[in-house]
Amino acid sequence: MRQSLLFTKTRKDAPKDEVSKNAQLLIRAGYIHKEMAGVYSLLPLGLRVLNNIKKIVADEMSKLGSNEIIMSTIQNKEVWEKTDRWDDEKVDVWFKSKINGGSEIGFGWSHEEPITDMMKNFVSSYKDLPSVVHQFQNKLRNEVRAKSGIMRCREFIMKDMYAFSKTREENDGFYTQATHSYMNVFKRLGIGDITYVTSASGGVFSNEFSHEFQTICDAGEDIIYVNEDKKIALNKEIFNKKVLDEMGMTEGDFVEKKVAEVGNIFNFGTEKCEKLGLYFKDNEGLKKPVFLSSYGIGITRLIGVIAEVLSDENGLVWPKEVAPYQIHLISIEDKEGKVKVEADKLYDRLKARGEEVLYDDRDARPGEKFADSDLIGIPKRIVISAKTIENDSVEVKDRKTGVVEMIKNERV
Amino acid sequence: MRQSLLFTKTRKDAPKDEVSKNAQLLIRAGYIHKEMAGVYSLLPLGLRVLNNIKKIVADEMSKLGSNEIIMSTIQNKEVWEKTDRWDDEKVDVWFKSKINGGSEIGFGWSHEEPITDMMKNFVSSYKDLPSVVHQFQNKLRNEVRAKSGIMRCREFIMKDMYAFSKTREENDGFYTQATHSYMNVFKRLGIGDITYVTSASGGVFSNEFSHEFQTICDAGEDIIYVNEDKKIALNKEIFNKKVLDEMGMTEGDFVEKKVAEVGNIFNFGTEKCEKLGLYFKDNEGLKKPVFLSSYGIGITRLIGVIAEVLSDENGLVWPKEVAPYQIHLISIEDKEGKVKVEADKLYDRLKARGEEVLYDDRDARPGEKFADSDLIGIPKRIVISAKTIENDSVEVKDRKTGVVEMIKNERV
Repeated sequence: MRQSLLFTKTRKDAPKDEVSKNAQLLIRAGYIHKEMAGVYSLLPLGLRVLNNIKKIVADEMSKLGSNEIIMSTIQNKEVWEKTDRWDDEKVDVWFKSKINGGSEIGFGWSHEEPITDMMKNFVSSYKDLPSVVHQFQNKLRNEVRAKSGIMRCREFIMKDMYAFSKTREENDGFYTQATHSYMNVFKRLGIGDITYVTSASGGVFSNEFSHEFQTICDAGEDIIYVNEDKKIALNKEIFNKKVLDEMGMTEGDFVEKKVAEVGNIFNFGTEKCEKLGLYFKDNEGLKKPVFLSSYGIGITRLIGVIAEVLSDENGLVWPKEVAPYQIHLISIEDKEGKVKVEADKLYDRLKARGEEVLYDDRDARPGEKFADSDLIGIPKRIVISAKTIENDSVEVKDRKTGVVEMIKNERV
Repeated sequence: MRQSLLFTKTRKDAPKDEVSKNAQLLIRAGYIHKEMAGVYSLLPLGLRVLNNIKKIVADEMSKLGSNEIIMSTIQNKEVWEKTDRWDDEKVDVWFKSKINGGSEIGFGWSHEEPITDMMKNFVSSYKDLPSVVHQFQNKLRNEVRAKSGIMRCREFIMKDMYAFSKTREENDGFYTQATHSYMNVFKRLGIGDITYVTSASGGVFSNEFSHEFQTICDAGEDIIYVNEDKKIALNKEIFNKKVLDEMGMTEGDFVEKKVAEVGNIFNFGTEKCEKLGLYFKDNEGLKKPVFLSSYGIGITRLIGVIAEVLSDENGLVWPKEVAPYQIHLISIEDKEGKVKVEADKLYDRLKARGEEVLYDDRDARPGEKFADSDLIGIPKRIVISAKTIENDSVEVKDRKTGVVEMIKNERV
């Protein structure tokens, strides 16, 4: 992509009301646009990052045998009443409205209920189970507080997956598999070493357990307690004497960490399916309720977390797998136009072999181009100038390490 | 994809309240699920069709030099008040709600206003224009009537594109280019020969013109008037004496056709940008308002229109470019399990060379498999059975023409 054709520009300053580092950087670099507190649009660079994250997550979910779907945003009141989650007293993040001349509707903040209700069309026998589906869906949540940039939004994209199983064993087996897949996702996103599988409600040994995936992050809103030796992490809710006693451990065995939740997995047992009427006939013809577990990853939140933890004083620093482009090619043009010719050639050559290149072909000062490049944070910067051309070379800089080397043009 | 791993099933009947043919077929074949009137979720097969259509549209938009973005669903009241389109008296399809303890918000039924407002961050000089952006966005519209299946929904995916230009000439040049791109889209989708560029408001020779792309379809809600010789189509709004006189034609030169609108393009002139404050400095330093034109294609509506016009009494008939899979491989199993072995081999071979195959490996009667295959409507059906194996062959059927031929297994 020629940068001259990208409609966005970098900005010196983020909007005054933007207090979070992730959104400040992402807005200044042209990845997102703020519509209002907690509501952002994704610009071309941001959309590319989003799609890269989605691709990794989709790949891991597909390895789990999950079918991709996309549920509607508009939701039925009746379905949520069955589980007593329609009332604003019970769920305080609903956006609601009304069909013209018709009934009240809700805007999807989650999808356990509609998806379980839908599965009644497809599950009747033990032969139909297990069944796993996932989606990348735009959730709407009426959050009172939205001050963490794209880490806590009123509108955000979530990957939510739902596993329907015949038995507790089948359900728990999938739960364990999915836990591994989730850690693969975070590894591939470049935050595996700072992300913890954290026991949440239900304790460590309970049957109705749940887990959170927590990434160490100063801007995070959660606290967890970590024992590095035993690879155990507990959230605040279950970090108490009862649970610690069960484990034969004490408070002193744990270190407190500030974290951001990037994923969570829940076991609903058979409760939700019983309330919504999702049953199956087992191989003896007996009617039984289906087991449900659900698996979330905050996709746009991840963009925010990665921006928070992997940036430096000069701007964003994207991991290779997430970066909007792999190479930022920068031409420092001379008056004779020689550099332009060579830079165009190099750009065409890189594109021809399938490289993802952002080519800064703008008529701008070198200092501005370098500062923009650091801010945008593409992993590899290649500079071509009259000086490098003299030596048949280009200058290659690694955004993360800052290491610079000269490389012969034909070896790029 | 092994059909045994697809969680959806075909159904004998659509829901009783579903009156439209497109939704009946798409529900029965397992492409969509009805949440309520005018609101559907997309199941795995439906999502694949959606993604195929998006790919074609994205390709044509990218050739126009458009940048892809994704705007938020939650919208600011203030922005729409500036153009007097917030009031329910003025726009009757708003869904609205309120931020907890905060201001009123709207759910995006269109995006001209927010996108024009956003562009104020990126357009200041003539050097920043022209600028073209597009998105595939989930629109929410509070329609009173929603009886045409996924052809008129309260929630639907639209490709909307916005072109910002310096001058009328620049704007009109892009408008013409985009018109050609739109016809390319419809050709590639297999409905080019039944889709008309239709002059709408503004008349044929006016400056503030607009056009609709109308596909002949019995279930359509619109009427257009076509002159095949001169390749002219007019919508109802401008089919009057004044316009006909201007053209030197009479009512009798036109044939009436029932159609469904699959795309539309609008010229806003400078009006919207003036109201929202989007100006630029020209090369003499003078402040001028930006020209805006907008370009819509109803992506989920297209699924409905294609289902309506290209189906037959046995089910859906997808064009190759849109079909969820290219090949429907069906095994008619024998008791010895020989067919299963050969069918598995053929499936692996087809997959290895990159073919998109739905493999009906289910334990079901042949009649059921054939009926399901016709209903699902994949272009090429390949049947492998004990009988075909005897002749080292498979039976290949073209879904559209019904033509059947025996082909040597190794030649498939």
